[in-house]
Amino acid sequence: MAHSPNSNAQDFRSACSIARTLDLLGDKWTLLIIRDLMWHGKHTFQQLQESAEGPPTNLLSGRLKKLMEQGLVKREPYQERPVRYRYELTDKGRSLEGILKDLMVWGHEHLGGGFYEPGGSKTL
Amino acid sequence: MAHSPNSNAQDFRSACSIARTLDLLGDKWTLLIIRDLMWHGKHTFQQLQESAEGPPTNLLSGRLKKLMEQGLVKREPYQERPVRYRYELTDKGRSLEGILKDLMVWGHEHLGGGFYEPGGSKTL
Repeated sequence: MAHSPNSNAQDFRSACSIARTLDLLGDKWTLLIIRDLMWHGKHTFQQLQESAEGPPTNLLSGRLKKLMEQGLVKREPYQERPVRYRYELTDKGRSLEGILKDLMVWGHEHLGGGFYEPGGSKTL
Repeated sequence: MAHSPNSNAQDFRSACSIARTLDLLGDKWTLLIIRDLMWHGKHTFQQLQESAEGPPTNLLSGRLKKLMEQGLVKREPYQERPVRYRYELTDKGRSLEGILKDLMVWGHEHLGGGFYEPGGSKTL
């Protein structure tokens, strides 16, 4: 099974690019964490936990770990004793912005959700 | 919570359009079923089950039911005794094509998956 140089060694279900993307991002939470890092200025564990959807602690912790393993998110300590981290998207993580926008536009048109314009006024 | 006229009555986690879309499509299988209906000429239960990823019977059955309830998929009987159905995307289901393409492009660029050109040669 061919991998591009920047993919992690990982067992994928198939050679299909959609299936592979869903292997990483196909759940109800991962893309919301990426949304908060990308658009909503949430960078600490506590900020991410206070999102509108309120991800459970264990889930958030596990997803951040997975996102770091996949090279979509990185973190730096911003405080010691106790150590606290600031989470940021990597370039690979930021490259998901188009997908986020598409999901938003579709949910706005078909499910009556809010419309958010990155950099513009927040209507989320 | 405001809904557009064509949305089903449903409890969503939040007003965020991305969260709502993930409430419907945020799993590892639903968008693969939509992919097969959209691009790969798979329209019977058996054809859908024979996809590269081989969805388990119960899972496929449950997802098709949910997709019909949400108005993304419709079915017509093509045979009686025993009755067999042909599954098709509705217009609402077809409106997901842009999201499928984006997921494919991202998985191709970042995870080494195949590139498929709808209407062109299959490299999936």
